[in-house]
Amino acid sequence: MSRSPGRKQENHKISRELFVLTYGALVAQLCKDYEKDEDVNTCLDSMGYSIGIRLIDDFLARSAVKKCRSYAETADMIAQVAFKMYLGVTPSVSCRSATGNEFSLILDKNPLVDFVEELPAERASLCYCNLLCGVIRGALEMVHLAAEVTFLQDRLKGDAVTEIGITFLRKPEDRKHKKN
Amino acid sequence: MSRSPGRKQENHKISRELFVLTYGALVAQLCKDYEKDEDVNTCLDSMGYSIGIRLIDDFLARSAVKKCRSYAETADMIAQVAFKMYLGVTPSVSCRSATGNEFSLILDKNPLVDFVEELPAERASLCYCNLLCGVIRGALEMVHLAAEVTFLQDRLKGDAVTEIGITFLRKPEDRKHKKN
Repeated sequence: MSRSPGRKQENHKISRELFVLTYGALVAQLCKDYEKDEDVNTCLDSMGYSIGIRLIDDFLARSAVKKCRSYAETADMIAQVAFKMYLGVTPSVSCRSATGNEFSLILDKNPLVDFVEELPAERASLCYCNLLCGVIRGALEMVHLAAEVTFLQDRLKGDAVTEIGITFLRKPEDRKHKKN
Repeated sequence: MSRSPGRKQENHKISRELFVLTYGALVAQLCKDYEKDEDVNTCLDSMGYSIGIRLIDDFLARSAVKKCRSYAETADMIAQVAFKMYLGVTPSVSCRSATGNEFSLILDKNPLVDFVEELPAERASLCYCNLLCGVIRGALEMVHLAAEVTFLQDRLKGDAVTEIGITFLRKPEDRKHKKN
């Protein structure tokens, strides 16, 4: 019955729906476990962080991207390469600050909420997709970029779009910026 | 910032790794929640069932498969179309009974455990991937096929392969079988 071990890396692509529903089961379980939305949000962020610090190796290995030279390039990389690879969507990116360290990833369509119609009234503060913030934060940390990552807008809460804010905290690129 | 709604169905494919790590976070959370492995297994199966009864619509819509005429065809469909679509792997199928209602899906490689080395000693009875059994059971039920689905072998527990056993319980096809 055994097949060649070479199959292992054969197919990294899967259908999104099983993931989306499994993620829903995870959030539902945490909502059972924690009364406060804030605790669910923290837990999702923390789980995401643990995932991000592992996922970065996979990302670097398979994307074969080069080192980013600026925060803007990093934000573009997250949107255009990482989101595309892991979630099959490409958010648009905008810079939110003159200092060039605050960016928004804007999703007109959030694949993670495909099967979610709206949040229950008693869960109004839930950041349903907070795992994503943790993943981004964890992955960035592993390439020596400290960042705060939070949801700024959420279609599940009635906003027009879903917006993830990334604020880079340290500035290894400062020297380069000052040259310009 | 909005894009055309036509994008919605554009890309159903995602990279498996985020799913695998998220699934790991779910299992870890349940292991925190429940002391007994049996309770974790039951919970995973039950979550999978809820997922399966929703996933079947997606499967039927996107696979465009025809109605199966036998249990053997159904088992092949699960292995060759559903597993391929949702997990990117194709288990081999074998029939385990003369009555033709017991099948095994045999995975030499289980993508869900990509990042799991082995079960902790205190979790020896954990069926790590039990969600899959629930998904299959739930999906089958929605096409009017009652089935028991359990892990018969598990590489995580030292077995040579991972084997999912499917026992079809009712026999709407009996009449046809008797003709042969």
